[in-house]
Formats: sequence, C-alpha cells, structure tokens
Amino acid sequence: MPARMRPDERLPLYQQLSDEMLARIAAGEWLPGTPIPSETELTRLHGVAIGTVRKAVDTLVKQGILERNHGRGTFVRRPQFAESFFRFFRQVSPTGNQPVPQSRILTRSLELPPEAVRHSLALEKNEPTVYLTRERIIQEDRLFREEIWLPKDRFSPLLDIDPTQFANMLYPFYEERCGQLIASARETLTIESADKHMAKLLGIAAGEPVVAVERIALGYDATPLEYRLSRGAAEGFRYQIDLR
Amino acid sequence: MPARMRPDERLPLYQQLSDEMLARIAAGEWLPGTPIPSETELTRLHGVAIGTVRKAVDTLVKQGILERNHGRGTFVRRPQFAESFFRFFRQVSPTGNQPVPQSRILTRSLELPPEAVRHSLALEKNEPTVYLTRERIIQEDRLFREEIWLPKDRFSPLLDIDPTQFANMLYPFYEERCGQLIASARETLTIESADKHMAKLLGIAAGEPVVAVERIALGYDATPLEYRLSRGAAEGFRYQIDLR
Repeated sequence: MPARMRPDERLPLYQQLSDEMLARIAAGEWLPGTPIPSETELTRLHGVAIGTVRKAVDTLVKQGILERNHGRGTFVRRPQFAESFFRFFRQVSPTGNQPVPQSRILTRSLELPPEAVRHSLALEKNEPTVYLTRERIIQEDRLFREEIWLPKDRFSPLLDIDPTQFANMLYPFYEERCGQLIASARETLTIESADKHMAKLLGIAAGEPVVAVERIALGYDATPLEYRLSRGAAEGFRYQIDLR
Repeated sequence: MPARMRPDERLPLYQQLSDEMLARIAAGEWLPGTPIPSETELTRLHGVAIGTVRKAVDTLVKQGILERNHGRGTFVRRPQFAESFFRFFRQVSPTGNQPVPQSRILTRSLELPPEAVRHSLALEKNEPTVYLTRERIIQEDRLFREEIWLPKDRFSPLLDIDPTQFANMLYPFYEERCGQLIASARETLTIESADKHMAKLLGIAAGEPVVAVERIALGYDATPLEYRLSRGAAEGFRYQIDLR
C-alpha cells in the first residue's frame, strides 16, 4: 500500500475499512466507473470478516461514494452534478433541449487567495493558488462570470497549458491533467447588488440584483479542491434542484 | 394484495418487482424507518430468483428510496430535505445553532388551482385543491410567505382541522393526518421584483428583489402531492445545498 495516513484504530473496524477505501479512491487507485475488488477479495486483503466488509460498503453507498450493480460488482460513483450548470438555465430551446454552455478562460495566474478562500481550501498562509477567471456564455448573452481558486500543489499542471486549450467542462479536465477527482460540493446562493465593475462585466446597470453562487468542491476524502464564485444577472436566472 | 395497478409485464422482472415495491411504499404498507421483508422473504413472496430481488433492491437504493443497513435489514429511506428550511438561513446564532423557524397558517380554503399549479399536480379540470397561505418567521422578522396547493382527494382531512393546530413541520403532519408520504421534491429558484402587495407582506419597498422558490413535492411512486410557492426578500437570503 502506498504511504498514506493510517486509519484511526480507535474507530470500529468497518469505519477504519471505509476510511481506507475512501483513501484509495481519493488517491485514484480505484477509479469511477470501474468495479472495486469483490467482497471476498476485500475480506482476504484486509483480514476482516465479510460482515465488516459489507458494513463498510453500505456506509459508502449511503454516502453516495459507491454504488452496487448486482451481477456487475460495486463501483465508485461518479458525481452527478458535474453537468449541473444546466440547473442554471431558464432558456430551453423549442425542442426542449438545453443549449450547451460555452466557456472561456479569461485570465490565469498564480495568486495568494483572499482570506475566506484560503480558509475554505484549508491552505496554510502563503500557499499560492492557481487563479482563473472564466466566462460562461449561452446563446450570445454573457451569463456567468466565474472566479476559481485551486491549490497550486495539486493543480500546477494547469500553469503549463495554454488557457485556450482548457476543456469546456473543468472537472473531467482536472481529472485528466491533474489526477484530481471531484466527488461532492457545497453550493451557497446569495443575492447581491451589482457594483460598477460587475455591472459592466455582466452588461447590466449598477445596482441591479446579481446572483452569487459560491461552490466549494471536495475530493472523495473530503479534501477541499476548488473554490469557485460565479456571478450572473438575477433577471432570467433560474436554479433548479432535485431533493431527496 | 390491495387493488393497484399491475406492473407492466413488458418490463424486465426486476423492474416489475421494484415498481411493485414502490407501490407498497407509496400505499404506506412499508413505512420509512421500518425494515422491509428480507431478500429471502421477497424471493418467496414474489416467486422470483434472489438475483432479481437484489437487482430490484439495488435499483431502489440507487434512487434513494431504500437503504441497506448491514445486520439490521433494508429500510425505506426517509427523505433528508424535510428539515431543509435550514438551508435558507443566513442567521446563525453565536453558539452555531440554527434558530427554529416558526410557522403560522394564515388562510385555508378549497380552491380551483391556477393553470400552472393544476398542470404540475397532474389534476383534471375542476378538481379542487386545499389552498393554504402560510408565514414562516424567524427571530421576529417575517421571512417567507408561502402558498400551498394540495389535491383535495388526498388531503381533505386538513379541511377539518383548526389551522392553529397545524404542526410546524408539514410533511410529518401530512403523513400523520392524511397518510401522504413525501419522498422527493424539485425546487426552482427565480428572482422577482416585489409588487406592491408582496412588498407590503414582506415589509420591503416595492421593486426590491424577492426570491421565489417553487417546490413540487412527490410521493414514493412519483405522484405529485404538493405545490408550494415561497417568497422572501432577497436581502439576507441564503440557499445552501450539498451536491453529489
């Protein structure tokens, strides 16, 4: 096993095991879309009872990390919200299809993050971030202006890629270029009043309401990997979500 | 077995079985928080192979309807968003605790719903609804004004209860009084400008931005059970959600 933190031995066995499984997923040893070892293999590998293995798997299924496909095995679940930008659309084409958003990186630099971002990303003082600004466009209207902060130690490959070559969807791009997998995120919506600068960027009048969406995206082991702040005009804005 | 729609026999066996299981849950035969029959019992009851039972259970686990607890059985999952009103708070008390929102029913009547509501609830023309208006209050500030439409044929017991006796949390109340279980919901946020009437209700100036949250809540068999429209001042509004 590669070097990594040992599970806390004060925890019940099944929790130690589920922590170890999470660490393997976060390290990219078990990838989304491929089956993990069978329960019998896990029992042998970890020297625990099959009941312990099942309880560990149940726990990760409940957390939305794994999913069972009877007859095909147990898989690392790929998060569903990656395409969630579609939640933001009001516009639906007459055929009912959602238009595909286009993205463009505007700037890329190495920056010390603002205090709130540093705190959210659990970074040490003076730890730099890859800072991106980005525009997401739909049907020739500017829709969202985004600011993105990524810990430099994990995302430095992005500094060597021409910003025009960044993929439209960033999460698969992070996975491919930096080996960083996003598993979940916490999103917080608030409404602001556009200052002069933001009003100009969004093509609205100063003082008009603007929606600000803050997203903190986490890896499979709950490490914060990305801090994103997206702003768009409140007029015509829609945010849709399914709750369970 | 009580009278209900027979599963579609063109579907694969495991899907017919999962549809039957869903119908039992929607009918209140299998309740949240209690274990459903074991895989062996289901095999016997339905005369299908254990692989078919497992596949049906896997499907419902993936949909967030059931959850496995190794050693204790498989349970009907209670939806987590019932307490989701907490997602709307900006205010957090100094101890980090969320204040408990207080609710008050303002009016209750039998109404023909607006066309959009009728459509969302899949009602026939001229089918009446129980119509509620409601106020949700936090820390002496009015926070949300709600309008709620419920199909009369399922929710008529609410017409005989004094509105002051309605519980603070409606979903457990629907379950207790009407036998109607909410399993999921689709929420859509948009931002409006307060008209005179809404401005007065919310204690803000006309023209100020207002958040409108539309919620369509569904039963375990995906029948729409409640249409809810909540409005609050955009200032100080926060909406937080965890995505997977």
